[in-house]
Amino acid sequence: MSVVLPSWFDPGDERAARVVWSRIAEPGDLVAARFVAGRGPAAALRLVLEAESSRVEVQQRWRARLAATDPRRDLGILRRLGGRVLVPGDEEWPDPLDDLGERRPFCLWVRGPGHLGALTARAVAIVGARASTDYGDGLATELAFGCAERGICVVSGAAYGVDAAAHRGALSAAGGTIAVLACGVDRPYPRVNLDLIEQVAAAGLLVSEVPPGCSPTRNRFIHRNRLIAALGGATVVVEAGWRSGASITASEAAGLGRAVGAVPGPVTSAASAGCHRLLRTGAVCVTRVGEVAELVDPLGAVEDERPILPRAVHDDLPEVDLRVLDALPLSRPAPESSLATVAGLDAAALASSLGRLELLGLARPGPGGWRRGPHPRQD
Amino acid sequence: MSVVLPSWFDPGDERAARVVWSRIAEPGDLVAARFVAGRGPAAALRLVLEAESSRVEVQQRWRARLAATDPRRDLGILRRLGGRVLVPGDEEWPDPLDDLGERRPFCLWVRGPGHLGALTARAVAIVGARASTDYGDGLATELAFGCAERGICVVSGAAYGVDAAAHRGALSAAGGTIAVLACGVDRPYPRVNLDLIEQVAAAGLLVSEVPPGCSPTRNRFIHRNRLIAALGGATVVVEAGWRSGASITASEAAGLGRAVGAVPGPVTSAASAGCHRLLRTGAVCVTRVGEVAELVDPLGAVEDERPILPRAVHDDLPEVDLRVLDALPLSRPAPESSLATVAGLDAAALASSLGRLELLGLARPGPGGWRRGPHPRQD
Repeated sequence: MSVVLPSWFDPGDERAARVVWSRIAEPGDLVAARFVAGRGPAAALRLVLEAESSRVEVQQRWRARLAATDPRRDLGILRRLGGRVLVPGDEEWPDPLDDLGERRPFCLWVRGPGHLGALTARAVAIVGARASTDYGDGLATELAFGCAERGICVVSGAAYGVDAAAHRGALSAAGGTIAVLACGVDRPYPRVNLDLIEQVAAAGLLVSEVPPGCSPTRNRFIHRNRLIAALGGATVVVEAGWRSGASITASEAAGLGRAVGAVPGPVTSAASAGCHRLLRTGAVCVTRVGEVAELVDPLGAVEDERPILPRAVHDDLPEVDLRVLDALPLSRPAPESSLATVAGLDAAALASSLGRLELLGLARPGPGGWRRGPHPRQD
Repeated sequence: MSVVLPSWFDPGDERAARVVWSRIAEPGDLVAARFVAGRGPAAALRLVLEAESSRVEVQQRWRARLAATDPRRDLGILRRLGGRVLVPGDEEWPDPLDDLGERRPFCLWVRGPGHLGALTARAVAIVGARASTDYGDGLATELAFGCAERGICVVSGAAYGVDAAAHRGALSAAGGTIAVLACGVDRPYPRVNLDLIEQVAAAGLLVSEVPPGCSPTRNRFIHRNRLIAALGGATVVVEAGWRSGASITASEAAGLGRAVGAVPGPVTSAASAGCHRLLRTGAVCVTRVGEVAELVDPLGAVEDERPILPRAVHDDLPEVDLRVLDALPLSRPAPESSLATVAGLDAAALASSLGRLELLGLARPGPGGWRRGPHPRQD
């Protein structure tokens, strides 16, 4: 029995075939991925198109969507939005996605002025709770701002809460940011973040593996996390509940050999429970943007962001001098004989120590013996 | 030249010799420790007593204190306080201290009804910032209370802040607690914690390696930390500044092969900076008493303190059913043909999935097709 192939099918156009596969197979359909990888996108698609209905069950589930499929229409919608489709091998294709192996998407639907390959050469995923607190939102914004300032692209999911704060932080620094959507790039979700998502589309990139018109389903949310994890060179979780999508992204990142950071918070805050769980299972504790940058550039120059502390004058003293310092009275002077007893030193060692301490202004000789110098005692 | 030995010296009394060594050598004096270890306490002491002054410099530093030394007086003070001296080999001697090797103290000056050996068989050091916040104090009290309830003794340093809160928590649970002091057990420090320290002496134990009358010097504070770390089977830090004694205790514990835990806090709190630093260098993130107990009893039954969360009805659904659930409209019913397209399933797979969902109350058939069941959608 001969089958009439649809007019849009071109057996020589692998790119068009990938576009069709992104429509007929759900994200996470590994059978489809292996089928396409084994035969090539167009040849695999032809087998589905030519299959007698109900002969091969697994192919039937892709055929169910074929009637409504028209890649020319999908590409037309995308073009009107100024978008483009990327397939593996394209100059703009992000190499980090190849780490997904057979879970690599068929293609990416992309909108925005950014160059996906260039942006993901140095990128971090900053993700977290939808039900975030001001603490989490503030930190996500601050860390994303700092990353963007350092030329690190911020990848997130455009969700409420931490995701949105991360995109905002990167945009504030006029830095690169990528929103990976679980729906078509023509129908931003959630709607309440519409303005933000359009700003990302105007300054950075919107990315999705599903074609225009697709709604964000639970399955697509789950598999979207692997794209966020793969596009970031590291993943940082800022607030996450005990069960959360951010934790899935973190475990995807770990599975890909990417560094995972988690921002601690009060143990009394349910919004940080997922972060603490991650810290207990190997995530790196991250408290400052420099520590995020270290995860992304592990071999780069590590910034020393140690808080600048006033050094105590006794910090570098040898232990013997510390003991003499401890023995020195604050007010009434003590003779060297009693200082030797208190400090447990012989006369010669005491004398040389007192000399060093006097030079530092820590000991003061006078009638009746020695006492503390003008430097205040700091405990 | 013959030397007159002091009347208190008995060459056969190793215990009395250790008492003298604890007076004439400062904590941390490894030369004294090795000298005593090599010759035995009494023989080593005799060598010091007989040394011609200024002949052997290192012995001179111990001689400096000999004139003021009288072990009978020190022991008398202790007895009047109801205390006792412990030396290695005593039935009450805490074996964990032997892990210190040559840094083991000569003896311990002890006050209180507790049995040091028994208490330290299952103990945790809970230490932290003097400049703690209500958050840190609250957590220290809570964790110590929970440990005491579980029969785990709480070891700390009786300092302001976290230490005091830890002792208070253990006392509230009528549990064992040990305060390791940097001064003599007859002169509690800090004075502001006098009531608390007396409560510890009445219900638990005060412990010091320096004799009665000794003041708390910087050197003694530093070396005191090793005793806290060694007496605890694990060390947990609850709030600590970037530089802190608690961090020293933590690194002593790590050096002894003990587990180290740190309680996270807001990254915006300077009082948690030391804890986050510890988390970045290998400490275990600790948020609940069960996690502290795990550090102390790593092979014991791990308590499952996972927060009890309402399970979403779709948690255990196979992916194919999730896809159908996502495809089901909330209000206007959809025919099976369109559901198959949206979900990407063939007719047979769709029908069996709808059957399962209907049983769970997640799908509802009716005129015109299927829609969501009465269970609300939870995203």
